[in-house]
Amino acid sequence: MGKFIVIGERIHCISPVIKQAMDTRDPAPILKRAKEQIDAGATYLDVNIGPAEKGGEDLMKWAVQTIQSEFDNIPLCLDTANKKAIEAGISVYNRSKGKPIVNSADAGDRIENIDLAAANDAIVLALCSKAGISSDNDERMGYCQEMLERGMGLGMEPEDLWFDPLFLVIKGMQDKQMEVLSFIKDLADMGLNSSGGLSNCSNMMPKNIRPIIDSTMVAMAMFCGLTSAIANPSDLRLMETIRSADVIKNNTLYADSYLEI
Amino acid sequence: MGKFIVIGERIHCISPVIKQAMDTRDPAPILKRAKEQIDAGATYLDVNIGPAEKGGEDLMKWAVQTIQSEFDNIPLCLDTANKKAIEAGISVYNRSKGKPIVNSADAGDRIENIDLAAANDAIVLALCSKAGISSDNDERMGYCQEMLERGMGLGMEPEDLWFDPLFLVIKGMQDKQMEVLSFIKDLADMGLNSSGGLSNCSNMMPKNIRPIIDSTMVAMAMFCGLTSAIANPSDLRLMETIRSADVIKNNTLYADSYLEI
Repeated sequence: MGKFIVIGERIHCISPVIKQAMDTRDPAPILKRAKEQIDAGATYLDVNIGPAEKGGEDLMKWAVQTIQSEFDNIPLCLDTANKKAIEAGISVYNRSKGKPIVNSADAGDRIENIDLAAANDAIVLALCSKAGISSDNDERMGYCQEMLERGMGLGMEPEDLWFDPLFLVIKGMQDKQMEVLSFIKDLADMGLNSSGGLSNCSNMMPKNIRPIIDSTMVAMAMFCGLTSAIANPSDLRLMETIRSADVIKNNTLYADSYLEI
Repeated sequence: MGKFIVIGERIHCISPVIKQAMDTRDPAPILKRAKEQIDAGATYLDVNIGPAEKGGEDLMKWAVQTIQSEFDNIPLCLDTANKKAIEAGISVYNRSKGKPIVNSADAGDRIENIDLAAANDAIVLALCSKAGISSDNDERMGYCQEMLERGMGLGMEPEDLWFDPLFLVIKGMQDKQMEVLSFIKDLADMGLNSSGGLSNCSNMMPKNIRPIIDSTMVAMAMFCGLTSAIANPSDLRLMETIRSADVIKNNTLYADSYLEI
Protein backbone atom coordinates (compact mmCIF):
# COMPACT_ATOMS: atom_id res chain seq x y z
CA MET A 1 0.00 0.00 0.00
CA GLY A 2 1.19 3.52 -0.76
CA LYS A 3 1.45 6.30 1.76
CA PHE A 4 -1.66 8.36 2.37
CA ILE A 5 -1.87 11.44 0.15
CA VAL A 6 -2.77 14.78 1.69
CA ILE A 7 -4.08 17.41 -0.73
CA GLY A 8 -3.49 20.72 1.05
CA GLU A 9 -6.68 22.79 0.97
CA ARG A 10 -5.41 26.21 2.02
CA ILE A 11 -4.92 27.94 -1.34
CA HIS A 12 -8.57 28.84 -1.64
CA CYS A 13 -10.14 32.07 -2.89
CA ILE A 14 -12.56 31.99 0.04
CA SER A 15 -9.65 33.35 2.07
CA PRO A 16 -9.55 37.16 1.63
CA VAL A 17 -5.75 37.15 1.54
CA ILE A 18 -5.65 34.56 -1.23
CA LYS A 19 -8.52 36.20 -3.12
CA GLN A 20 -6.65 39.49 -3.21
CA ALA A 21 -3.40 37.80 -4.21
CA MET A 22 -5.22 36.10 -7.07
CA ASP A 23 -6.93 39.33 -8.16
CA THR A 24 -3.69 41.33 -8.14
CA ARG A 25 -1.42 38.47 -9.28
CA ASP A 26 0.64 38.87 -6.13
CA PRO A 27 2.62 35.62 -5.72
CA ALA A 28 3.85 36.16 -2.16
CA PRO A 29 0.75 35.19 -0.11
CA ILE A 30 0.12 32.15 -2.30
CA LEU A 31 3.71 30.95 -2.16
CA LYS A 32 3.71 31.44 1.61
CA ARG A 33 0.70 29.16 2.03
CA ALA A 34 2.14 26.69 -0.44
CA LYS A 35 5.36 26.48 1.54
CA GLU A 36 3.58 26.09 4.87
CA GLN A 37 1.58 23.19 3.51
CA ILE A 38 4.51 21.49 1.80
CA ASP A 39 6.60 21.81 4.96
CA ALA A 40 3.75 20.31 6.98
CA GLY A 41 3.56 17.25 4.74
CA ALA A 42 1.15 17.95 1.89
CA THR A 43 1.78 15.85 -1.23
CA TYR A 44 -0.57 17.77 -3.52
CA LEU A 45 -1.80 21.35 -3.24
CA ASP A 46 -5.35 22.27 -4.13
CA VAL A 47 -5.69 25.53 -6.07
CA ASN A 48 -9.23 26.79 -5.71
CA ILE A 49 -9.98 29.85 -7.82
CA GLY A 50 -13.75 29.71 -7.27
CA PRO A 51 -16.28 29.88 -10.16
CA ALA A 52 -13.82 32.14 -12.04
CA GLU A 53 -16.20 32.73 -14.90
CA LYS A 54 -14.27 35.76 -16.05
CA GLY A 55 -10.53 35.51 -16.50
CA GLY A 56 -10.35 32.02 -15.00
CA GLU A 57 -8.05 30.70 -17.73
CA ASP A 58 -5.40 33.34 -17.20
CA LEU A 59 -5.67 33.08 -13.45
CA MET A 60 -5.28 29.30 -13.33
CA LYS A 61 -2.31 29.41 -15.70
CA TRP A 62 -0.66 32.03 -13.58
CA ALA A 63 -1.33 30.11 -10.34
CA VAL A 64 -0.02 26.81 -11.71
CA GLN A 65 3.16 28.37 -13.09
CA THR A 66 3.74 30.52 -10.02
CA ILE A 67 3.51 27.59 -7.61
CA GLN A 68 5.19 24.91 -9.68
CA SER A 69 8.15 27.07 -10.65
CA GLU A 70 8.84 27.90 -7.01
CA PHE A 71 8.39 24.40 -5.54
CA ASP A 72 10.02 21.93 -7.88
CA ASN A 73 6.86 21.17 -9.88
CA ILE A 74 4.83 20.14 -6.86
CA PRO A 75 1.69 18.36 -8.14
CA LEU A 76 -1.53 20.34 -8.03
CA CYS A 77 -5.25 19.81 -7.83
CA LEU A 78 -7.07 22.29 -10.08
CA ASP A 79 -10.25 23.34 -8.38
CA THR A 80 -12.89 25.44 -10.16
CA ALA A 81 -16.28 25.11 -11.80
CA ASN A 82 -14.76 26.70 -14.94
CA LYS A 83 -13.75 23.84 -17.21
CA LYS A 84 -11.81 26.05 -19.56
CA ALA A 85 -9.76 27.31 -16.63
CA ILE A 86 -8.88 23.72 -15.70
CA GLU A 87 -7.82 23.00 -19.28
CA ALA A 88 -5.77 26.17 -19.35
CA GLY A 89 -4.08 25.17 -16.10
CA ILE A 90 -3.26 21.73 -17.44
CA SER A 91 -1.81 23.28 -20.63
CA VAL A 92 1.02 24.82 -18.58
CA TYR A 93 1.20 22.12 -15.90
CA ASN A 94 4.47 20.20 -15.41
CA ARG A 95 3.67 16.58 -14.56
CA SER A 96 7.17 15.42 -13.63
CA LYS A 97 6.11 15.01 -9.96
CA GLY A 98 2.59 13.75 -10.60
CA LYS A 99 -0.46 14.09 -12.81
CA PRO A 100 -2.78 17.05 -12.31
CA ILE A 101 -6.01 16.37 -10.43
CA VAL A 102 -9.31 17.73 -11.78
CA ASN A 103 -11.50 18.85 -8.87
CA SER A 104 -14.17 17.65 -9.39
CA ALA A 105 -16.68 15.52 -11.24
CA ASP A 106 -19.91 13.99 -10.02
CA ALA A 107 -22.55 11.75 -11.56
CA GLY A 108 -24.74 14.76 -12.40
CA ASP A 109 -24.03 18.18 -13.90
CA ARG A 110 -20.30 17.79 -13.54
CA ILE A 111 -19.86 14.40 -15.16
CA GLU A 112 -18.07 15.95 -18.14
CA ASN A 113 -15.10 16.65 -15.91
CA ILE A 114 -14.38 12.94 -16.27
CA ASP A 115 -14.12 13.44 -20.03
CA LEU A 116 -11.85 16.40 -19.40
CA ALA A 117 -9.58 14.31 -17.18
CA ALA A 118 -9.56 11.46 -19.72
CA ALA A 119 -8.65 13.81 -22.56
CA ASN A 120 -5.76 15.26 -20.56
CA ASP A 121 -4.36 12.15 -18.84
CA ALA A 122 -5.31 13.64 -15.49
CA ILE A 123 -6.64 12.26 -12.23
CA VAL A 124 -10.23 13.20 -11.37
CA LEU A 125 -11.96 13.52 -8.04
CA ALA A 126 -15.28 11.79 -8.61
CA LEU A 127 -17.97 12.65 -6.09
CA CYS A 128 -20.38 9.76 -5.56
CA SER A 129 -23.51 11.87 -5.76
CA LYS A 130 -25.80 13.30 -8.40
CA ALA A 131 -28.21 15.90 -7.06
CA GLY A 132 -27.66 16.39 -3.34
CA ILE A 133 -26.56 13.79 -0.85
CA SER A 134 -26.90 10.14 -1.80
CA SER A 135 -29.45 8.40 0.38
CA ASP A 136 -27.49 5.21 0.96
CA ASN A 137 -24.46 3.20 -0.14
CA ASP A 138 -26.30 1.48 -2.97
CA GLU A 139 -26.90 4.89 -4.50
CA ARG A 140 -23.28 5.94 -3.88
CA MET A 141 -22.05 2.74 -5.49
CA GLY A 142 -24.33 3.23 -8.48
CA TYR A 143 -22.79 6.63 -9.16
CA CYS A 144 -19.31 5.24 -8.59
CA GLN A 145 -19.91 2.54 -11.19
CA GLU A 146 -21.37 5.04 -13.64
CA MET A 147 -18.33 7.31 -13.38
CA LEU A 148 -15.88 4.41 -13.40
CA GLU A 149 -17.39 3.04 -16.59
CA ARG A 150 -17.41 6.45 -18.22
CA GLY A 151 -13.75 7.03 -17.39
CA MET A 152 -12.63 3.56 -18.41
CA GLY A 153 -14.63 3.83 -21.63
CA LEU A 154 -12.55 6.89 -22.41
CA GLY A 155 -9.31 5.04 -21.73
CA MET A 156 -8.64 6.11 -18.14
CA GLU A 157 -6.94 3.76 -15.70
CA PRO A 158 -9.26 2.97 -12.76
CA GLU A 159 -6.64 4.28 -10.32
CA ASP A 160 -6.96 7.75 -11.84
CA LEU A 161 -10.52 8.09 -10.62
CA TRP A 162 -10.38 9.04 -6.94
CA PHE A 163 -13.86 8.47 -5.57
CA ASP A 164 -15.19 10.87 -2.98
CA PRO A 165 -17.79 9.35 -0.63
CA LEU A 166 -18.74 12.88 0.53
CA PHE A 167 -18.01 13.20 4.21
CA LEU A 168 -21.17 14.33 5.99
CA VAL A 169 -21.51 16.77 8.84
CA ILE A 170 -21.86 15.06 12.23
CA LYS A 171 -24.00 17.89 13.54
CA GLY A 172 -27.17 16.88 11.78
CA MET A 173 -26.11 13.60 10.22
CA GLN A 174 -24.50 11.81 13.14
CA ASP A 175 -26.22 8.53 12.33
CA LYS A 176 -24.75 8.49 8.79
CA GLN A 177 -21.06 8.43 9.70
CA MET A 178 -20.56 4.67 9.85
CA GLU A 179 -22.34 4.34 6.51
CA VAL A 180 -19.86 6.70 4.86
CA LEU A 181 -16.97 4.78 6.40
CA SER A 182 -18.44 1.52 5.22
CA PHE A 183 -18.63 2.93 1.69
CA ILE A 184 -14.93 3.81 1.83
CA LYS A 185 -14.32 0.17 2.72
CA ASP A 186 -16.39 -0.93 -0.28
CA LEU A 187 -14.27 1.28 -2.54
CA ALA A 188 -11.06 -0.11 -1.05
CA ASP A 189 -12.29 -3.68 -1.42
CA MET A 190 -12.69 -2.95 -5.14
CA GLY A 191 -9.12 -1.67 -5.26
CA LEU A 192 -10.24 1.89 -5.96
CA ASN A 193 -8.64 5.09 -4.76
CA SER A 194 -10.61 7.53 -2.67
CA SER A 195 -10.43 11.06 -1.37
CA GLY A 196 -12.67 13.77 0.01
CA GLY A 197 -13.10 16.84 2.11
CA LEU A 198 -12.53 15.25 5.45
CA SER A 199 -13.29 18.26 7.63
CA ASN A 200 -16.89 18.34 6.38
CA CYS A 201 -17.54 15.97 9.26
CA SER A 202 -16.70 18.62 11.86
CA ASN A 203 -18.48 21.54 10.20
CA MET A 204 -20.13 23.92 12.65
CA MET A 205 -18.29 22.45 15.62
CA PRO A 206 -16.27 24.67 17.98
CA LYS A 207 -12.81 25.41 16.61
CA ASN A 208 -10.97 23.53 19.38
CA ILE A 209 -12.98 20.36 18.75
CA ARG A 210 -12.52 20.14 14.98
CA PRO A 211 -8.96 18.72 14.97
CA ILE A 212 -10.03 16.10 17.52
CA ILE A 213 -13.02 14.90 15.51
CA ASP A 214 -11.14 15.16 12.20
CA SER A 215 -8.22 13.10 13.45
CA THR A 216 -10.50 10.42 14.89
CA MET A 217 -12.37 10.31 11.59
CA VAL A 218 -9.22 10.07 9.49
CA ALA A 219 -7.91 7.15 11.55
CA MET A 220 -11.17 5.28 11.00
CA ALA A 221 -11.32 6.22 7.31
CA MET A 222 -7.71 5.13 6.76
CA PHE A 223 -8.45 1.84 8.46
CA CYS A 224 -11.28 1.43 5.92
CA GLY A 225 -8.87 2.12 3.09
CA LEU A 226 -9.18 5.85 2.32
CA THR A 227 -6.13 6.67 0.19
CA SER A 228 -6.21 10.48 0.22
CA ALA A 229 -7.95 13.49 1.70
CA ILE A 230 -8.33 17.16 0.95
CA ALA A 231 -7.33 18.56 4.30
CA ASN A 232 -5.42 21.17 6.22
CA PRO A 233 -1.82 19.95 6.60
CA SER A 234 -1.22 22.71 9.14
CA ASP A 235 -3.49 20.79 11.52
CA LEU A 236 -0.73 19.10 13.48
CA ARG A 237 -2.95 16.61 15.27
CA LEU A 238 -4.45 15.50 11.98
CA MET A 239 -1.06 15.02 10.34
CA GLU A 240 0.28 13.13 13.37
CA THR A 241 -2.70 10.82 13.14
CA ILE A 242 -2.27 10.28 9.40
CA ARG A 243 1.41 9.41 9.86
CA SER A 244 0.53 7.05 12.72
CA ALA A 245 -2.19 5.36 10.70
CA ASP A 246 0.30 4.86 7.88
CA VAL A 247 2.57 3.12 10.41
CA ILE A 248 -0.22 0.92 11.80
CA LYS A 249 -1.25 -0.03 8.25
CA ASN A 250 2.40 -0.79 7.48
CA ASN A 251 2.37 1.74 4.63
CA THR A 252 5.51 3.34 6.07
CA LEU A 253 8.13 1.75 8.27
CA TYR A 254 8.14 2.82 11.90
CA ALA A 255 11.09 4.77 13.22
CA ASP A 256 11.15 6.84 16.40
CA SER A 257 11.46 9.87 14.12
CA TYR A 258 8.46 9.00 11.93
CA LEU A 259 6.51 12.11 12.91
CA GLU A 260 9.25 14.41 11.66
CA ILE A 261 9.75 12.88 8.23
CA MET B 1 -24.35 0.18 20.90
CA GLY B 2 -23.18 1.03 24.38
CA LYS B 3 -20.53 3.59 25.21
CA PHE B 4 -16.93 2.40 25.14
CA ILE B 5 -15.72 1.19 28.54
CA VAL B 6 -12.37 2.38 29.84
CA ILE B 7 -10.80 0.23 32.56
CA GLY B 8 -8.33 2.54 34.30
CA GLU B 9 -4.96 0.81 34.59
CA ARG B 10 -3.16 3.04 37.08
CA ILE B 11 -3.72 1.19 40.37
CA HIS B 12 -0.89 -1.23 39.73
CA CYS B 13 1.70 -2.57 42.15
CA ILE B 14 4.42 -1.98 39.57
CA SER B 15 4.23 1.66 40.66
CA PRO B 16 6.44 2.10 43.75
CA VAL B 17 3.95 4.50 45.32
CA ILE B 18 1.09 2.02 44.92
CA LYS B 19 3.23 -0.91 46.00
CA GLN B 20 4.11 0.83 49.23
CA ALA B 21 0.52 1.87 49.82
CA MET B 22 -0.56 -1.74 49.38
CA ASP B 23 2.21 -3.04 51.65
CA THR B 24 1.41 -0.56 54.43
CA ARG B 25 -2.37 -0.47 53.84
CA ASP B 26 -2.21 3.27 53.30
CA PRO B 27 -5.40 4.21 51.45
CA ALA B 28 -4.42 7.77 50.43
CA PRO B 29 -2.23 7.11 47.36
CA ILE B 30 -4.66 4.51 46.03
CA LEU B 31 -7.70 6.70 46.51
CA LYS B 32 -5.87 9.58 44.85
CA ARG B 33 -5.21 7.54 41.71
CA ALA B 34 -8.73 6.17 41.79
CA LYS B 35 -10.16 9.69 41.89
CA GLU B 36 -7.92 10.93 39.08
CA GLN B 37 -9.03 8.09 36.85
CA ILE B 38 -12.72 8.41 37.68
CA ASP B 39 -12.60 12.16 37.08
CA ALA B 40 -10.89 11.53 33.73
CA GLY B 41 -13.65 9.18 32.58
CA ALA B 42 -12.78 5.64 33.65
CA THR B 43 -15.81 3.35 34.02
CA TYR B 44 -13.97 0.49 35.72
CA LEU B 45 -10.75 0.56 37.74
CA ASP B 46 -8.21 -2.22 37.47
CA VAL B 47 -6.67 -3.26 40.79
CA ASN B 48 -3.41 -5.05 40.11
CA ILE B 49 -1.82 -6.52 43.21
CA GLY B 50 0.76 -8.59 41.30
CA PRO B 51 1.34 -12.31 41.95
CA ALA B 52 0.47 -11.70 45.63
CA GLU B 53 1.23 -15.25 46.64
CA LYS B 54 1.45 -14.30 50.29
CA GLY B 55 -1.33 -12.25 51.85
CA GLY B 56 -3.08 -11.67 48.56
CA GLU B 57 -6.50 -12.47 49.92
CA ASP B 58 -6.32 -9.88 52.66
CA LEU B 59 -4.79 -7.32 50.37
CA MET B 60 -7.45 -7.67 47.64
CA LYS B 61 -10.25 -7.50 50.20
CA TRP B 62 -8.77 -4.37 51.68
CA ALA B 63 -8.27 -2.75 48.27
CA VAL B 64 -11.80 -3.54 47.07
CA GLN B 65 -13.42 -2.22 50.22
CA THR B 66 -11.17 0.82 50.40
CA ILE B 67 -11.94 1.92 46.85
CA GLN B 68 -15.60 0.98 46.66
CA SER B 69 -16.50 2.58 49.97
CA GLU B 70 -14.95 5.87 48.91
CA PHE B 71 -16.32 6.01 45.35
CA ASP B 72 -19.93 4.86 45.44
CA ASN B 73 -19.17 1.22 44.66
CA ILE B 74 -17.29 1.93 41.46
CA PRO B 75 -16.92 -1.37 39.57
CA LEU B 76 -13.50 -3.00 39.68
CA CYS B 77 -11.36 -5.33 37.67
CA LEU B 78 -9.50 -7.74 39.98
CA ASP B 79 -6.07 -8.34 38.56
CA THR B 80 -3.73 -10.95 40.02
CA ALA B 81 -2.39 -14.42 39.28
CA ASN B 82 -3.61 -15.47 42.76
CA LYS B 83 -7.04 -17.04 42.26
CA LYS B 84 -7.83 -17.10 45.95
CA ALA B 85 -7.17 -13.39 46.12
CA ILE B 86 -9.68 -12.80 43.33
CA GLU B 87 -12.26 -14.90 45.15
CA ALA B 88 -11.58 -13.04 48.37
CA GLY B 89 -12.00 -9.72 46.54
CA ILE B 90 -15.31 -10.84 45.07
CA SER B 91 -16.53 -11.96 48.51
CA VAL B 92 -16.55 -8.34 49.69
CA TYR B 93 -17.32 -6.72 46.31
CA ASN B 94 -20.47 -4.61 45.96
CA ARG B 95 -21.96 -5.17 42.49
CA SER B 96 -24.59 -2.44 42.56
CA LYS B 97 -22.69 -0.49 39.84
CA GLY B 98 -21.46 -3.45 37.82
CA LYS B 99 -20.17 -7.01 38.04
CA PRO B 100 -16.55 -7.59 39.02
CA ILE B 101 -14.14 -8.40 36.20
CA VAL B 102 -11.67 -11.28 36.60
CA ASN B 103 -8.34 -10.32 34.99
CA SER B 104 -7.59 -12.65 33.29
CA ALA B 105 -8.11 -16.05 31.70
CA ASP B 106 -6.49 -17.50 28.61
CA ALA B 107 -6.83 -20.78 26.71
CA GLY B 108 -3.80 -22.25 28.50
CA ASP B 109 -2.69 -22.27 32.13
CA ARG B 110 -5.21 -19.66 33.16
CA ILE B 111 -8.34 -21.21 31.70
CA GLU B 112 -9.71 -21.97 35.15
CA ASN B 113 -10.28 -18.29 35.68
CA ILE B 114 -13.29 -18.77 33.42
CA ASP B 115 -14.65 -21.30 35.90
CA LEU B 116 -13.96 -18.82 38.68
CA ALA B 117 -15.89 -16.09 36.86
CA ALA B 118 -18.76 -18.49 36.10
CA ALA B 119 -18.99 -19.57 39.73
CA ASN B 120 -19.11 -15.97 40.90
CA ASP B 121 -21.34 -14.35 38.24
CA ALA B 122 -18.40 -12.21 37.17
CA ILE B 123 -17.11 -10.90 33.86
CA VAL B 124 -13.83 -12.41 32.64
CA LEU B 125 -11.14 -10.99 30.40
CA ALA B 126 -10.33 -13.87 28.08
CA LEU B 127 -7.03 -13.58 26.29
CA CYS B 128 -7.11 -15.29 22.88
CA SER B 129 -3.80 -17.06 23.31
CA LYS B 130 -2.45 -20.23 24.87
CA ALA B 131 1.32 -20.30 25.10
CA GLY B 132 2.78 -17.12 23.69
CA ILE B 133 1.40 -15.02 20.87
CA SER B 134 -1.11 -16.64 18.52
CA SER B 135 0.31 -16.98 15.05
CA ASP B 136 -2.81 -15.87 13.16
CA ASN B 137 -6.51 -15.10 13.48
CA ASP B 138 -7.55 -18.71 12.97
CA GLU B 139 -5.58 -19.59 16.07
CA ARG B 140 -7.00 -16.62 17.98
CA MET B 141 -10.52 -17.61 16.98
CA GLY B 142 -9.92 -21.21 18.01
CA TYR B 143 -9.01 -20.08 21.54
CA CYS B 144 -11.93 -17.68 21.58
CA GLN B 145 -14.34 -20.48 20.74
CA GLU B 146 -12.77 -22.78 23.31
CA MET B 147 -13.18 -20.21 26.08
CA LEU B 148 -16.65 -19.18 24.94
CA GLU B 149 -17.84 -22.78 25.03
CA ARG B 150 -16.30 -23.38 28.42
CA GLY B 151 -17.95 -20.27 29.87
CA MET B 152 -21.35 -20.96 28.30
CA GLY B 153 -21.16 -24.58 29.41
CA LEU B 154 -20.86 -23.27 32.95
CA GLY B 155 -23.89 -21.01 32.51
CA MET B 156 -22.17 -17.72 31.64
CA GLU B 157 -23.79 -15.25 29.28
CA PRO B 158 -21.60 -14.69 26.19
CA GLU B 159 -21.47 -10.97 26.90
CA ASP B 160 -19.66 -11.65 30.18
CA LEU B 161 -16.63 -12.99 28.33
CA TRP B 162 -14.61 -9.99 27.13
CA PHE B 163 -12.18 -11.31 24.56
CA ASP B 164 -8.72 -9.83 24.41
CA PRO B 165 -7.04 -10.04 20.99
CA LEU B 166 -3.70 -9.13 22.59
CA PHE B 167 -2.48 -5.87 21.16
CA LEU B 168 1.01 -6.38 19.76
CA VAL B 169 3.97 -4.04 19.91
CA ILE B 170 4.46 -2.06 16.69
CA LYS B 171 8.21 -1.96 17.23
CA GLY B 172 8.91 -5.50 16.14
CA MET B 173 5.48 -6.56 14.98
CA GLN B 174 4.45 -3.70 12.72
CA ASP B 175 3.12 -6.02 10.04
CA LYS B 176 0.71 -7.69 12.49
CA GLN B 177 -1.35 -4.64 13.45
CA MET B 178 -4.03 -4.91 10.77
CA GLU B 179 -4.45 -8.59 11.60
CA VAL B 180 -5.19 -7.79 15.24
CA LEU B 181 -7.70 -5.13 14.16
CA SER B 182 -9.31 -7.56 11.78
CA PHE B 183 -9.70 -10.04 14.63
CA ILE B 184 -11.48 -7.39 16.70
CA LYS B 185 -13.87 -6.99 13.77
CA ASP B 186 -14.45 -10.77 13.73
CA LEU B 187 -15.31 -10.68 17.43
CA ALA B 188 -17.69 -7.75 16.90
CA ASP B 189 -19.36 -9.48 13.95
CA MET B 190 -20.12 -12.36 16.31
CA GLY B 191 -21.65 -9.92 18.78
CA LEU B 192 -18.91 -10.50 21.35
CA ASN B 193 -17.41 -7.98 23.74
CA SER B 194 -13.71 -7.25 23.63
CA SER B 195 -11.02 -5.51 25.61
CA GLY B 196 -7.27 -5.45 25.98
CA GLY B 197 -4.16 -3.60 26.98
CA LEU B 198 -4.22 -1.03 24.23
CA SER B 199 -0.90 0.63 25.00
CA ASN B 200 0.98 -2.59 24.26
CA CYS B 201 1.05 -1.31 20.69
CA SER B 202 3.27 1.64 21.61
CA ASN B 203 5.61 -0.19 23.95
CA MET B 204 9.23 0.99 23.73
CA MET B 205 8.30 4.12 21.79
CA PRO B 206 9.36 7.57 22.99
CA LYS B 207 7.03 8.93 25.66
CA ASN B 208 5.74 11.81 23.53
CA ILE B 209 4.75 9.47 20.71
CA ARG B 210 2.80 6.93 22.74
CA PRO B 211 -0.44 8.97 23.13
CA ILE B 212 -0.39 9.68 19.38
CA ILE B 213 -0.05 6.04 18.37
CA ASP B 214 -2.43 4.85 21.11
CA SER B 215 -5.16 7.28 20.08
CA THR B 216 -4.82 6.38 16.40
CA MET B 217 -5.01 2.70 17.32
CA VAL B 218 -8.05 3.14 19.56
CA ALA B 219 -9.96 4.97 16.81
CA MET B 220 -9.27 2.11 14.40
CA ALA B 221 -10.05 -0.54 17.02
CA MET B 222 -13.32 1.17 17.97
CA PHE B 223 -14.29 1.35 14.31
CA CYS B 224 -13.73 -2.43 14.23
CA GLY B 225 -15.99 -2.87 17.23
CA LEU B 226 -13.71 -2.94 20.28
CA THR B 227 -16.01 -2.41 23.26
CA SER B 228 -13.51 -1.73 26.03
CA ALA B 229 -9.84 -1.19 26.78
CA ILE B 230 -7.51 -1.32 29.75
CA ALA B 231 -5.91 2.07 29.41
CA ASN B 232 -4.70 5.22 31.09
CA PRO B 233 -7.66 7.59 31.42
CA SER B 234 -5.25 10.37 32.35
CA ASP B 235 -4.04 10.31 28.73
CA LEU B 236 -6.14 13.25 27.53
CA ARG B 237 -5.58 12.67 23.83
CA LEU B 238 -6.64 9.05 24.18
CA MET B 239 -9.81 9.95 26.06
CA GLU B 240 -10.69 12.71 23.58
CA THR B 241 -10.33 10.18 20.78
CA ILE B 242 -12.46 7.58 22.56
CA ARG B 243 -15.23 10.14 23.16
CA SER B 244 -15.01 11.26 19.52
CA ALA B 245 -15.16 7.69 18.25
CA ASP B 246 -18.25 7.11 20.40
CA VAL B 247 -19.81 10.14 18.66
CA ILE B 248 -18.86 8.96 15.17
CA LYS B 249 -20.24 5.50 15.94
CA ASN B 250 -23.40 7.15 17.27
CA ASN B 251 -22.90 5.47 20.65
CA THR B 252 -23.34 8.85 22.34
CA LEU B 253 -25.16 11.90 21.04
CA TYR B 254 -23.02 14.78 19.90
CA ALA B 255 -23.15 18.03 21.84
CA ASP B 256 -20.55 20.80 21.70
CA SER B 257 -19.73 19.87 25.29
CA TYR B 258 -19.22 16.16 24.60
CA LEU B 259 -15.55 16.19 25.58
CA GLU B 260 -16.34 17.45 29.07
CA ILE B 261 -19.02 14.94 29.99
